[in-house]
Amino acid sequence: MTAVGIDGIEIWSGKLSLDLPEEFAPVMDDDPEKYTKGLGLFQSSFPDAYEDIVTMAANAAYRLIERKDIDPADVGRIDVATESAFDKSKPVSTYVAGALERVLDGEFRHANKGERKFACISGTQALNDAMNWIAAGRNRGRGAIVIATDTALYERGDPGEATQGAGAVAMYVTEDPSIVELSMEQGFGSVDETDFLKPNQQFPSVDGKRSMQVYLARMREALEDFESVTGKSHPEDYRFIPFHTPFPNMVRKAAVLGYRHMIRDTDIEDELAAEIGRQPRPEEYEDDEAFSEDIQAYMDALSETEAYREWYERTIEPTLDISSRVGNWYTSSVHLARLSALIYAKREGIDLAGETLLVGSYGSGAQAEIHEERVVEGWESEIDGDSVDELLAARHPITFEEYERVHDQHNHAKEKTLEPFTAPEGEFVFDGWGPMNERQYTFIE
Amino acid sequence: MTAVGIDGIEIWSGKLSLDLPEEFAPVMDDDPEKYTKGLGLFQSSFPDAYEDIVTMAANAAYRLIERKDIDPADVGRIDVATESAFDKSKPVSTYVAGALERVLDGEFRHANKGERKFACISGTQALNDAMNWIAAGRNRGRGAIVIATDTALYERGDPGEATQGAGAVAMYVTEDPSIVELSMEQGFGSVDETDFLKPNQQFPSVDGKRSMQVYLARMREALEDFESVTGKSHPEDYRFIPFHTPFPNMVRKAAVLGYRHMIRDTDIEDELAAEIGRQPRPEEYEDDEAFSEDIQAYMDALSETEAYREWYERTIEPTLDISSRVGNWYTSSVHLARLSALIYAKREGIDLAGETLLVGSYGSGAQAEIHEERVVEGWESEIDGDSVDELLAARHPITFEEYERVHDQHNHAKEKTLEPFTAPEGEFVFDGWGPMNERQYTFIE
Repeated sequence: MTAVGIDGIEIWSGKLSLDLPEEFAPVMDDDPEKYTKGLGLFQSSFPDAYEDIVTMAANAAYRLIERKDIDPADVGRIDVATESAFDKSKPVSTYVAGALERVLDGEFRHANKGERKFACISGTQALNDAMNWIAAGRNRGRGAIVIATDTALYERGDPGEATQGAGAVAMYVTEDPSIVELSMEQGFGSVDETDFLKPNQQFPSVDGKRSMQVYLARMREALEDFESVTGKSHPEDYRFIPFHTPFPNMVRKAAVLGYRHMIRDTDIEDELAAEIGRQPRPEEYEDDEAFSEDIQAYMDALSETEAYREWYERTIEPTLDISSRVGNWYTSSVHLARLSALIYAKREGIDLAGETLLVGSYGSGAQAEIHEERVVEGWESEIDGDSVDELLAARHPITFEEYERVHDQHNHAKEKTLEPFTAPEGEFVFDGWGPMNERQYTFIE
Repeated sequence: MTAVGIDGIEIWSGKLSLDLPEEFAPVMDDDPEKYTKGLGLFQSSFPDAYEDIVTMAANAAYRLIERKDIDPADVGRIDVATESAFDKSKPVSTYVAGALERVLDGEFRHANKGERKFACISGTQALNDAMNWIAAGRNRGRGAIVIATDTALYERGDPGEATQGAGAVAMYVTEDPSIVELSMEQGFGSVDETDFLKPNQQFPSVDGKRSMQVYLARMREALEDFESVTGKSHPEDYRFIPFHTPFPNMVRKAAVLGYRHMIRDTDIEDELAAEIGRQPRPEEYEDDEAFSEDIQAYMDALSETEAYREWYERTIEPTLDISSRVGNWYTSSVHLARLSALIYAKREGIDLAGETLLVGSYGSGAQAEIHEERVVEGWESEIDGDSVDELLAARHPITFEEYERVHDQHNHAKEKTLEPFTAPEGEFVFDGWGPMNERQYTFIE
């Protein structure tokens, strides 16, 4: 079987940024550390007046195509994942391909375009679909462009308001990829849940507490399902573990749970036993509540151990950098986590070739997926952390009052009067509505 | 490579039916033949008050699971295709799986659930994704449930109003399937078009004339792309050719175009030359318009030949039966066409095993896909035309005035006061909204 995986990654951020400790916290009358320490967030990205899920997707894809010098004829598939769609029938990928064709030489006339929906996990689902198409041998040597794009906005006053964000990640999926190869094995945990949904509404209905429980439960089931195929995993199997990151400190909760699961019946549990005891086993308990309390106490103690802290700093912390600066990009989030880790590794001079990542994706509603990725030789030539920093540094900072107007722009119930804060240059922009109420796009040189 | 394809098919129709010649034509002050001959349509299916895309999908899947005696643990994937979604984040497949789990022994906890969007072609895209997952060897012996479900409603007075419909098709996709094996080869024709879309609106914006042109253009490109892999196709290669069927007479237009394309440079063109001449070649013309006129004249003449009529009656006509009785089911439509042909073949005692179908799917926006399917030995034991007839005969006929109220029920701008016309029995029903504005479902014994 040919190796299949990610050959290139580019991102696009919404061009505005809101500083949470400086702008958001004072108006909310909150301690800034509620955001920086409590959530792990510093800034959120927001779209400027001429940006939306199509422009962000097209701009990320355009950067990818230009950098990798991709010929449109070599692209057999363009799939977009989003939970911010504005059209129930026409997929975002057609708008994106139409925009790109206005600028590129060549066209995507024989590429299969599509759109996937499942909260934040659909980016990974689209990645897997592209992989399956290639692994099945149906791609005729061509690659797939997979784009995750979202404007993640909550109702004003919703607890999720501090975790907002807007941006897109574009990935090129090919045979013999230049960055990571995806494992054939994958695990799923999936149950019908009502933790986050958008039933005919612009802003989500959210049960934040439930969503966090569901994230952890489904992730555990996905890992168990994965291990049922690959055998038991061990914390030292993985150099980095990028998780879906609605906010960085959600990943802190997932990490300790994953670590506890992985060290059970290992040398690590044995070594820690003197310090914090062995972890409670459900079969030793008749009472579920007593078990829950004891396992929580064990995890609290575990998270304070040197062994855990070292593992966390080595394996998890490096995945959180971009998220802490842009907020939740929904379908892109886990792909930002992978990219953060790769940028960190390149800057630190870490020799990643041959190392394995464990990637944990999640979508409310609810489903988690776990797969492995093996970093390939030469990966570092595809990773450019400076260009990510430049993109984020170029964002226009907005005040709270400006943020309120940006938010209103995305509220269907309100008049839209937002003037752009920035001037577009070398990028796709939203250009008004056509006669069939279709959104139209143009490229600004 | 293991053969992959469709192992079982079940449908569910919206439980109401509107007779077009008897009820619709008189109120529109139209000749009934405008519908029966002009469009090829007799009745449309509509959802009763307690039906929606989830109930129709769950009911079709439930019939499939019961008839095939599918163990939920053997299902590794549940994908739903729709262009009638009511939730921007939570996919229909989770609502469907949750409903089914209330009734079935077992659960779909490790199945990858998803939702695909691309107008009417996403049902076929979901089928292909399921196939790729199996052909790539990632399915661990499990099958995929693929469901296409839609309520296809147009604004009152829209020319599309006569082509409405509502229903779902559920298919089980497996290794070594019992009905048809899908070809690894496929062709695509795909261009960013504004022929039909639903930008933040309940009913579509439609340019019907443009959509018909785009359907034909993309279908031709998909066939050319397919032939670039498989070699030139010949009309006698295929026992049936199921097309996407927005209304049966759209397929008449596609069929003559396909036939003309396939007979070029064949014995058939030679044999017809004495009667209608040879078909014009674009390279013989300097003027595009003159070429268009001549090729149209050739196709008009071709459609009147005995050779074409025989081919049409043998290959195309049998695919249109269900559509003519239920209207446009959008994502399900091409799958109803395949099923119509298989029911016809079984009733006529045609030995289909080893025969090939050419399947032409289309979605506005716009994209066509072409692939082949090979009918396998024993196919007829999976096909039950009587159960389809019973389902359609059991529909409750509604008057035009009742139709108006049913339509209003689906208009978000109007009050919803529809009382059910029928009593549910042994099926899933919509049961009101929960605290997070989520739609809730229950099974009525």
